[in-house]
Amino acid sequence: MSNSLRVTIWNEYRHERSDPRVAAVYPDGIHVALANSLAAAGYTVRTATLDEPEHGLTEAVLAETDVLTWWGHMAHGEVSDEIVARVHQRVLEGMGLVVLHSGHFSKIFKRLMGTTCDLKWREIGERERLWVVAPGHPIVEGIGEYFEIPQEEMYGEFFDIPAPDELVLVSWFQGGEVFRSGCCYHRGQGKIFYFRPGHETYPSYHQPEVQRIIANGVRWAAPVERPSLAFGHRPEPIEELIEL
Amino acid sequence: MSNSLRVTIWNEYRHERSDPRVAAVYPDGIHVALANSLAAAGYTVRTATLDEPEHGLTEAVLAETDVLTWWGHMAHGEVSDEIVARVHQRVLEGMGLVVLHSGHFSKIFKRLMGTTCDLKWREIGERERLWVVAPGHPIVEGIGEYFEIPQEEMYGEFFDIPAPDELVLVSWFQGGEVFRSGCCYHRGQGKIFYFRPGHETYPSYHQPEVQRIIANGVRWAAPVERPSLAFGHRPEPIEELIEL
Amino acid sequence: MSNSLRVTIWNEYRHERSDPRVAAVYPDGIHVALANSLAAAGYTVRTATLDEPEHGLTEAVLAETDVLTWWGHMAHGEVSDEIVARVHQRVLEGMGLVVLHSGHFSKIFKRLMGTTCDLKWREIGERERLWVVAPGHPIVEGIGEYFEIPQEEMYGEFFDIPAPDELVLVSWFQGGEVFRSGCCYHRGQGKIFYFRPGHETYPSYHQPEVQRIIANGVRWAAPVERPSLAFGHRPEPIEELIEL
Amino acid sequence: MSNSLRVTIWNEYRHERSDPRVAAVYPDGIHVALANSLAAAGYTVRTATLDEPEHGLTEAVLAETDVLTWWGHMAHGEVSDEIVARVHQRVLEGMGLVVLHSGHFSKIFKRLMGTTCDLKWREIGERERLWVVAPGHPIVEGIGEYFEIPQEEMYGEFFDIPAPDELVLVSWFQGGEVFRSGCCYHRGQGKIFYFRPGHETYPSYHQPEVQRIIANGVRWAAPVERPSLAFGHRPEPIEELIEL
Repeated sequence: MSNSLRVTIWNEYRHERSDPRVAAVYPDGIHVALANSLAAAGYTVRTATLDEPEHGLTEAVLAETDVLTWWGHMAHGEVSDEIVARVHQRVLEGMGLVVLHSGHFSKIFKRLMGTTCDLKWREIGERERLWVVAPGHPIVEGIGEYFEIPQEEMYGEFFDIPAPDELVLVSWFQGGEVFRSGCCYHRGQGKIFYFRPGHETYPSYHQPEVQRIIANGVRWAAPVERPSLAFGHRPEPIEELIEL
Repeated sequence: MSNSLRVTIWNEYRHERSDPRVAAVYPDGIHVALANSLAAAGYTVRTATLDEPEHGLTEAVLAETDVLTWWGHMAHGEVSDEIVARVHQRVLEGMGLVVLHSGHFSKIFKRLMGTTCDLKWREIGERERLWVVAPGHPIVEGIGEYFEIPQEEMYGEFFDIPAPDELVLVSWFQGGEVFRSGCCYHRGQGKIFYFRPGHETYPSYHQPEVQRIIANGVRWAAPVERPSLAFGHRPEPIEELIEL
Repeated sequence: MSNSLRVTIWNEYRHERSDPRVAAVYPDGIHVALANSLAAAGYTVRTATLDEPEHGLTEAVLAETDVLTWWGHMAHGEVSDEIVARVHQRVLEGMGLVVLHSGHFSKIFKRLMGTTCDLKWREIGERERLWVVAPGHPIVEGIGEYFEIPQEEMYGEFFDIPAPDELVLVSWFQGGEVFRSGCCYHRGQGKIFYFRPGHETYPSYHQPEVQRIIANGVRWAAPVERPSLAFGHRPEPIEELIEL
Repeated sequence: MSNSLRVTIWNEYRHERSDPRVAAVYPDGIHVALANSLAAAGYTVRTATLDEPEHGLTEAVLAETDVLTWWGHMAHGEVSDEIVARVHQRVLEGMGLVVLHSGHFSKIFKRLMGTTCDLKWREIGERERLWVVAPGHPIVEGIGEYFEIPQEEMYGEFFDIPAPDELVLVSWFQGGEVFRSGCCYHRGQGKIFYFRPGHETYPSYHQPEVQRIIANGVRWAAPVERPSLAFGHRPEPIEELIEL
């Protein structure tokens, strides 16, 4: 089943076109790098980017999406509120969402979390080491006790998110910080996985452990097939009331 | 310390003025009933209502509020987005929030939860029985294994909220439903307690167990004194980096 | 992958041989009823019972078991501590465990939970209605908003368990109680699912919704393939320490 | 109320009498250092040690104890199973328990957790930095965003514990590890706080932040006054059953 999952990979796709340092790492864009690794994992992939009409996230595209991945950074404010509301509704209906790195500050993640999603950051190319704190979780299948990313942007606590429903990874940074790096949430019928790595100037999405965790996260976030939820007025009781 | 907590009791205050059945139960408004019981519990109370300027929730009032309680129903849409944003920020900074009954559909609760907060409901005056499922939690201090409300509006699952950080009470309804009735959340530096009872046509807020739980919830949600949070750019590492 | 999961179905298998009322419902034993439905779901099944040597749970059997299901009631005390320790170790190493009904009082469940696992009960054949409170969870795939069991033993709160890592189902009972009926836990590398229904005198394990949830629970509890955990002395730091 | 809390401080009290390096740091024992700081915080304190009759934890002492703190290391195996069972029962009945540092491997903590409670460790006197990840939690009242301990034993993940009900602190270690250092649990009517620092050769319990967190933890773990729990057979339904 997971191999037939339909994944839409959303990318802001601005840094890659304006900054040669980023283009050197992701010449076709972060979305294409992610698409290649997710296709290799057996998923049915498509991409969508900010500057497409409706940011590439039409009703039709979302209706055919089981899991959406999200990377954005410099242009969060340009994402239209209408599209955000559309994605929000789809997540609550069951579409999975995998939020990557600076996507922590996206409108959709902030709306789903209800908090500022703010954090500390520093960009000096220090080492990040990600430790597994939930070793039975399917998101870390195939991953050792920890893995390293040689150079990354630092994200540090306090990370203003709700306590994750399942905390899977905690990062150590060379400069002295820690960070909750792999965070699972259930919202409505949907599941959300936040995964920290992926600053645009470093080749993190080319690293096998990072690719594996994203692929695992997509599978974990897949929709569950069941009847839709019902809300509202239920005038008739299921049980007949009795007088005691 | 808890006796000096400053509590602001917010009420929509419309039903009581337009519906004689509600006025018969709460002649001075739900807010006054709550204020009386919270004052009797030793808190410093004030009230605020929808039709006051800024809904009674000026910057000055919120700055002097440790815990805010919220009851609204028919006029959620009339609460201004500006005031909602103001309350939201204060909660993330540490102000406690106790959301009552139909407040589940308020703008502030939905913003903090990130979900629809929708549910099933029925109003036939059936019996509600609230079971304690976290007996060591301070919110149920003084409460037995369960207590009953003779007649209440039914709220039924699925209740579209994030899984509570701490689930304290689960309701049984005579007509066949269950409901997560006492739900604790941490958001930013703030704490939020959702408590189900309190339909306007029933005297639930005159019932001692309900009053006790609200008083306990206020104390639990009280702010913690500590330095403010820092976010953003941290250019200097705490630790000197080394080459390995 | 889930279709190749190896499931061992453990049953005390005493009631069925001594009580004609139970034999009428489960003539070949509860384990055979469960085995048939899990085999039909595509799993590789075997059974084990209390009165076999080593209760049927030899080192060899456990080494070939991905997920173990457990039903016991009148003879919890006859399960040897050595076998309990063996199962405990295997769960922490990653073997899934699905604990059914009166298995709440088994030695293995109590050891894993660290609490008494006690509850209230009543056996008058009343109706149970199980409500889904985590609609995106894979354990309720294929299940509607609720389902009913026409007659069951009542289990009531307070159920002395740790708060579940994921609470999936809450039961309503005709006689006035509620119960956390579907509870997920992570312990070590293992996952544990407690599922309430299944009193021996009622045909609950013949009911399709119950069978579906057990099959889903087995899949959810399946081991994750990854390196074993390391503990103990790590004399060499990963990072070279520096003097600041 | 919290000022009248009765705290019993349990200490193995072996290292201090056999190792001059430890005696130099805690000449009267770790328990006396802790007792002094908790008395200064306003609690009513007593101490108990391993080599006293019944390890100092008689029925009478435990009956008069609201919160018990626990430090042990080299002699976990000498704690009698009978006393462990007694403490376990008292915790489930509501007595608070604060487990310190190497107490992670005590019989009582392992029994309450249901897991091995194993971890990685290294003793080279490296720096520990403890980050607050739950800034609204009462256990970090008075604590900044992080604090440092200049030299400590390292404890590293994977720490084989159940996911904490509330994760409050995460440690960074100079040598490359992270650790969940402040962990809250609810078990039965009792509350348990695990706090990492306190290797016997370092003066961590003389450090104000460490003292403050232990004092806060004691207050958080205080019992809640309410009726005892009832379990077992409930032959009569609360509600009269009806035939539909």
